[in-house]
Amino acid sequence: MEFLRLAKREEVYLNYFTLFKPLGTEKVSIFEAFRRFVARDILSPEDVPPFPRSTVDGYALIAKDTFGASISSPSILRLVGEVKMAEEPHKKLESGEAMRIWTGGWLPEGADAVLMLENSSLNGELLEVYKPVAPGENILKIGDDVKKGEVIVKKGFPIRSQEMAILQTLGILEVEVHRRPRVIIIPTGNELAEPWQELRPGKIRESNSISILSLIKDYSEKVERHPIVPDDWQSIKSVIKRNLAAYDLLLLSGGSSKGVGDLVTSVIEDFEGGEIIYHGVSISPGKPTIFARIKEKPIIGLPGHPVSSFVATYLFALPLIKYLQGDLNFKPDHLGFLELGTDIPSKPGREEWIRVKREGNKLTPIYSESGVISSLVKADGLVRIPENVEGYHQGELVEFYPV
Amino acid sequence: MEFLRLAKREEVYLNYFTLFKPLGTEKVSIFEAFRRFVARDILSPEDVPPFPRSTVDGYALIAKDTFGASISSPSILRLVGEVKMAEEPHKKLESGEAMRIWTGGWLPEGADAVLMLENSSLNGELLEVYKPVAPGENILKIGDDVKKGEVIVKKGFPIRSQEMAILQTLGILEVEVHRRPRVIIIPTGNELAEPWQELRPGKIRESNSISILSLIKDYSEKVERHPIVPDDWQSIKSVIKRNLAAYDLLLLSGGSSKGVGDLVTSVIEDFEGGEIIYHGVSISPGKPTIFARIKEKPIIGLPGHPVSSFVATYLFALPLIKYLQGDLNFKPDHLGFLELGTDIPSKPGREEWIRVKREGNKLTPIYSESGVISSLVKADGLVRIPENVEGYHQGELVEFYPV
Repeated sequence: MEFLRLAKREEVYLNYFTLFKPLGTEKVSIFEAFRRFVARDILSPEDVPPFPRSTVDGYALIAKDTFGASISSPSILRLVGEVKMAEEPHKKLESGEAMRIWTGGWLPEGADAVLMLENSSLNGELLEVYKPVAPGENILKIGDDVKKGEVIVKKGFPIRSQEMAILQTLGILEVEVHRRPRVIIIPTGNELAEPWQELRPGKIRESNSISILSLIKDYSEKVERHPIVPDDWQSIKSVIKRNLAAYDLLLLSGGSSKGVGDLVTSVIEDFEGGEIIYHGVSISPGKPTIFARIKEKPIIGLPGHPVSSFVATYLFALPLIKYLQGDLNFKPDHLGFLELGTDIPSKPGREEWIRVKREGNKLTPIYSESGVISSLVKADGLVRIPENVEGYHQGELVEFYPV
Repeated sequence: MEFLRLAKREEVYLNYFTLFKPLGTEKVSIFEAFRRFVARDILSPEDVPPFPRSTVDGYALIAKDTFGASISSPSILRLVGEVKMAEEPHKKLESGEAMRIWTGGWLPEGADAVLMLENSSLNGELLEVYKPVAPGENILKIGDDVKKGEVIVKKGFPIRSQEMAILQTLGILEVEVHRRPRVIIIPTGNELAEPWQELRPGKIRESNSISILSLIKDYSEKVERHPIVPDDWQSIKSVIKRNLAAYDLLLLSGGSSKGVGDLVTSVIEDFEGGEIIYHGVSISPGKPTIFARIKEKPIIGLPGHPVSSFVATYLFALPLIKYLQGDLNFKPDHLGFLELGTDIPSKPGREEWIRVKREGNKLTPIYSESGVISSLVKADGLVRIPENVEGYHQGELVEFYPV
């Protein structure tokens, strides 16, 4: 295979991803909305809380009445009743008065603060206050959490656990999200055998597809795996042709044998509207990845070596799947820095993704060929070495991408 | 509520979790094994690769024959054939000979290295070698990836994408894993209303359960949500009684109203074998969490404030669910360090979990009451401030827990 011009990773996001439009939108129940991406800003239809609430158990009062209070010289207030939970209080509080209130209770009119139980003592109707409270203390005013009309989830952002809760708090039980892609994984390679069949000498069991599938499943409407396709032009052509319409994304999972990449590019170019955008990326592992399209349909050709396949799926296939459903933050991002336990050398001129083992807060690189799948099993994550960096030294903090 | 003695977080893991045994095991298909925890060491039944393979396209040869080769003084070898993909080569290579071979091809007997295509030129049957290769170069010997009998996935470790691939490579299509817990979430609180009903004044919509559910779903066999239960002793008692047998874990999700915690502890203690292990943890938010059991069944009482509920689910409910299925690394762990954009003060004497917004590699704290759910929606993660630390300064690197 020749790689006349290797694309940089960012170029793939910039020039290839943007050839495709995010998929259409659909309304889904909040119960089905987890990990989906919001198709338009969601505005709050109401204030939260809808009434002023106490955030503690104590006494609703007028803060001014407690100014200067201390244990030696308490303020004395008159207890005039109790705010029952889940009920609107019907009495207006006057200066010198207090009402018993519970966490979540509705602050009576006139009151502007709540005194915590432990800073007082009650003798009959007389409440001794030992500590001043400030206006607004221990209460949430109407709209303090969310204001009516405020954007609560922005277009292009995901619905996580906390978004589910706030939507339900607001009574929003249906949301408009982008459709998730239907994906087909097509393994190709003459040396590959179906894992459930007896292994003939010289063959190896196909296993990249199950790893690709589990990496993308959470973000796809469905992921189908096609039976292994032999490395011949006509077989690959007819499989692509048959499946092009029913899926939003085709992932060709290459065997590692001779010229699969060139075969795939030649087949794609034979389609009307077939175009190879990039063949080869300046990353390692993952270099021989193919980015193509047939008209509006994206096709990624993933490398055959298991580590390369994994890295290319992580850096390109999953991000494209997120991009296709409107995710504005589709690019892989590290989740923090950890310390290197040893030096890592790197050749400049390509971005390297090094498998690492994590022990405590230290990372150790795992070196091996990209055909060695056990190296990925030993890894807890990847470390990125940018194109222009000649490796890192022991003790340096590096970007950690858990996988 | 009184918290006579607050447990430390580690005490909960050490003294409460260990009261329970991991659930039984079951055999599942590899296709259902993603995110499951392996119940016993999985050993490799065979060597990978099962035959010596080339990792590049090139020429199989005897390394010694190339020693000293250069462009000005190439070694000359005789091409004696080609190794066909997915076939066993039947010719033994002799000194002075080379065979064409492809990535993944079976190295012929006698050969001990592969020369990359680009370091040679072929004239008829004569191969000019321009660069010496070392013995073992560009090949994987039998068992170089995985040796027969080697442990490939350890007991108590999860099956990730890479484990799925290696298992399939080895033809292991079924694995023994621990059963995942069946969980019921029981929301309690008089001030709570079902989100799909019209909201009466003074009530708020119940929303903690959907956030708890989405946090634990990936690791549970099933998660059911019970309708809201009123804050009375008899109702709570009968709901627990009715559901105790059918679930492996009961999560009571408290309202924020008066004395729900005390009510729950009193009900649990009324059961035969009912025991409160801890009522209150020295963390913030999340302090009023209850850890209990009725005989062998764990019950966690989660706080009513939405942020406290979220943090307690993240720190205790999800880890317990993982512990119950044999996960040896069930404790929440940060995924790296990021820099603080501003100071964060903290009261010593309790572990604080601060909501933070991430911008690039900088974190900014989000301060608000634990009743303010929008603060969690604005957050990208949590930062832990240990019990004995009086806050962090701007520019310090802190543990980042994405949520």
